[in-house]
Amino acid sequence: MPFPAPSAALLGDLAGRLGPQGFTVDPADLAPWLTDWRRRVTGAAAALVSPASAEEAAFVVARAAAEGVAIVPQGGNSSMVGGATPAGPAEGRALLVSMRRMRAIRSVSPADNAVVAEAGVVLADLHEAVEAEGRRFPLSLAAKGNATVGGLVSTNAGGTQVLRFGPMRSLVLGLEAVLPDGSLLHGLAPLRKDNRGYDLKQLLIGGEGTLGLVTAATLRLVPAFETRSVGWIGLRSAEDALTLLRRLEDRLGEAVESFELVPAEGLALVLRHIPDTRAPLAESWTWNVLVEAVGSGDIGERLQNELMDAIEQGLAGDATIAASEAQADALWKLRESLSEAEARDGMAAKHDIAVPVADMPGFMTRASTAVTARFPGVRPIAFGHLGDGNVHFNVRAPEGGDDKAWFKAQAAAVSRFVHGLVTESGGTMSAEHGIGRFKRADFAALADPVRLAAMRAIKAALDPAGIMNPGALLPLAEDAPGQ
Amino acid sequence: MPFPAPSAALLGDLAGRLGPQGFTVDPADLAPWLTDWRRRVTGAAAALVSPASAEEAAFVVARAAAEGVAIVPQGGNSSMVGGATPAGPAEGRALLVSMRRMRAIRSVSPADNAVVAEAGVVLADLHEAVEAEGRRFPLSLAAKGNATVGGLVSTNAGGTQVLRFGPMRSLVLGLEAVLPDGSLLHGLAPLRKDNRGYDLKQLLIGGEGTLGLVTAATLRLVPAFETRSVGWIGLRSAEDALTLLRRLEDRLGEAVESFELVPAEGLALVLRHIPDTRAPLAESWTWNVLVEAVGSGDIGERLQNELMDAIEQGLAGDATIAASEAQADALWKLRESLSEAEARDGMAAKHDIAVPVADMPGFMTRASTAVTARFPGVRPIAFGHLGDGNVHFNVRAPEGGDDKAWFKAQAAAVSRFVHGLVTESGGTMSAEHGIGRFKRADFAALADPVRLAAMRAIKAALDPAGIMNPGALLPLAEDAPGQ
Repeated sequence: MPFPAPSAALLGDLAGRLGPQGFTVDPADLAPWLTDWRRRVTGAAAALVSPASAEEAAFVVARAAAEGVAIVPQGGNSSMVGGATPAGPAEGRALLVSMRRMRAIRSVSPADNAVVAEAGVVLADLHEAVEAEGRRFPLSLAAKGNATVGGLVSTNAGGTQVLRFGPMRSLVLGLEAVLPDGSLLHGLAPLRKDNRGYDLKQLLIGGEGTLGLVTAATLRLVPAFETRSVGWIGLRSAEDALTLLRRLEDRLGEAVESFELVPAEGLALVLRHIPDTRAPLAESWTWNVLVEAVGSGDIGERLQNELMDAIEQGLAGDATIAASEAQADALWKLRESLSEAEARDGMAAKHDIAVPVADMPGFMTRASTAVTARFPGVRPIAFGHLGDGNVHFNVRAPEGGDDKAWFKAQAAAVSRFVHGLVTESGGTMSAEHGIGRFKRADFAALADPVRLAAMRAIKAALDPAGIMNPGALLPLAEDAPGQ
Repeated sequence: MPFPAPSAALLGDLAGRLGPQGFTVDPADLAPWLTDWRRRVTGAAAALVSPASAEEAAFVVARAAAEGVAIVPQGGNSSMVGGATPAGPAEGRALLVSMRRMRAIRSVSPADNAVVAEAGVVLADLHEAVEAEGRRFPLSLAAKGNATVGGLVSTNAGGTQVLRFGPMRSLVLGLEAVLPDGSLLHGLAPLRKDNRGYDLKQLLIGGEGTLGLVTAATLRLVPAFETRSVGWIGLRSAEDALTLLRRLEDRLGEAVESFELVPAEGLALVLRHIPDTRAPLAESWTWNVLVEAVGSGDIGERLQNELMDAIEQGLAGDATIAASEAQADALWKLRESLSEAEARDGMAAKHDIAVPVADMPGFMTRASTAVTARFPGVRPIAFGHLGDGNVHFNVRAPEGGDDKAWFKAQAAAVSRFVHGLVTESGGTMSAEHGIGRFKRADFAALADPVRLAAMRAIKAALDPAGIMNPGALLPLAEDAPGQ
């Protein structure tokens, strides 16, 4: 392996510049940050380094670069793909650089509709800070109590409001970041238009820390919302769900912020395993949709009229609209408990995939048929963000067997098969979570060689020694391509 | 100069593969495409090459790359900054590659809210094609009868609806492009979420053809709009205009699509020089705003109520709302004739700049003061897209003198001074038009060295021989930096 361990002089310099709060080699301090969120791998690092400013972060990277020492950046350590765990080719010799001390919100400007937040700001804290100024940051996800701004930027995080506002890529107005040579890129001005050449921030967004260390971001805000209306709809087919979505968008405009698809089987799992849940409709429908519309005072009435129309015309089977915030929360609980209900029911190979929206109903059917033909007995279940084409396509162990043994023996093969199916359909094997360390081998096998060559050229140009987050995202020599 | 002329063998191969419609060296065929849109420079090229498919385009680039021959891509030739004119370091030896033959709209998918259009499709034709499917492509600009999809992508074009929908960067869902080595990058699938590493399309968007040749794009569509309401408002200050904008956004949501700022002096120029125009308000106001809101049937009433509120509270001085489409067009004419009225009045050094929105009122005042102090007698005028922070800051010749002589002697110095002011304010010297060939020297002098070094590294990685659009965007050795 090419990465050296940091020299004593380097460690001494870092300790001197960052102080005891910013530098430690104590195994007890490191331990909590060496295992990934899903508890699949535990790595090792030479030191935990926690800069308190962009200048300190630049100092750390410059000094590491001078020795060719690897850096693994870490925010809230909530990656689903092992993106922030030092378990790559520099394991034990990398500096684990935590951004959690950089947690200042530098400014909130309602007139600019922008907030400048440091990389270590936790998403839930960001929400609170901008709400106090009458604004909202329109991106949220389950890990909001842990996920940090730097991690959200570096993974181009999505969430439940992508339909209307897009992922992080659409919400980042500016970035400050340390490039792999230790130089500091200043770009926090909240410019709505800027055509001075290549948009470097777009490379860092979703770059998984392989091209630089994000230290702060300027993020787009929107007006605080007035009213939300949440409905639950029973439908006969996923195609009908898509037709309904486009109709609601035509008639209600961009008020439709969420449109989540839940199959009968998924709802049944939730009702079976999750306490305090009940079926929202009298009958069971093959497909269910949770819709949330946000707007001025009459949005509930407008949504209700549209749903009544859809039922009368046979497009929807049945529907209900939450009459209170408590009922709205109860409907959301049905959707948000799906993963947990599934986990309680047994092991599943999970996939974070997306296809073009119009193909999503067809893909779910094709993929279910193909996977059960190839792996007899498995039970596929598909749900997700219909408006984004983002399917959570999970394949559960055959009924009645030893699901843990099945998972160990079969999950990798099932995932490679599913990732192949989605790639053939023009889709993506990573809609939201990124590639990280866990999906690198499948990515190596399935990526378009033209795209991969361009990515490698960019990586080599900006990080010639490959010190930034080695082992994440870009396939390594040991990932056997074409497998 | 490092660029060789194409060999006879190369020219023969291109003629053979592309046929007489796709290849010519006849000076009469080339002539119309060698002068830039603003008629400032005339270049020369070895041949005009017009591929009819992505495969032909890839063949052209691969063969040129093999000989190190330069390529200047061209769409509608409507660049404001000489971005598509072969007047760079390979002048006379470059292949001028016109994309105008690739004008198919490959598909319109209302269910995906997406259209796949080839690079040569003219913007006005695109608008028409998607309207026929009940959708709209929410980007428009003055050159829509000439500008092509490939050029709009490569320059990250903006226009009048950026406030709501963003520039091209926000509207491109996928790209197909030939990279500088002749390989074809396939990426047209309309995925709303895709986290497989570096987003290469974001480099090509706004890359001004220096990193590849865009052959087709998948573009985001939105529902066709129902009703528009256009108002004209008189205000006492630009700060009041910004306050009004944020208030309308809070209360009307994203219905506000345009919010254009016009100073009293600009309106006076229009009324003086443009036939069939009349003042929309009884009194003259220091600042005027044209607002367009789009939405369901009651949007006109809602806008009117808000404007009446603003007048009662002293935020606005006076206001009128167009009672018909003809009146709406008449209000838009006042805004859209500003450049022409100014041109009729005499020469001006023009600037396409942006600052953070909240600083726009302050910047206009500071910059006007600074430029008249440095260049006594000049008459600055500022107008533009307030919601985007995009100021058209033009500096007119002193009154009564020889304005052509003044322009020749002073315009470059004025522009460098204005570009310096905006850079010091954290703004951009190119909000919409790009750098092209005309702004390269100022860009060289004012660009952040860290950003410029990263851009050069990316260019060298993807186009090591520098054959793609040499002389555009990236400063050359002969641009004296720091001037």
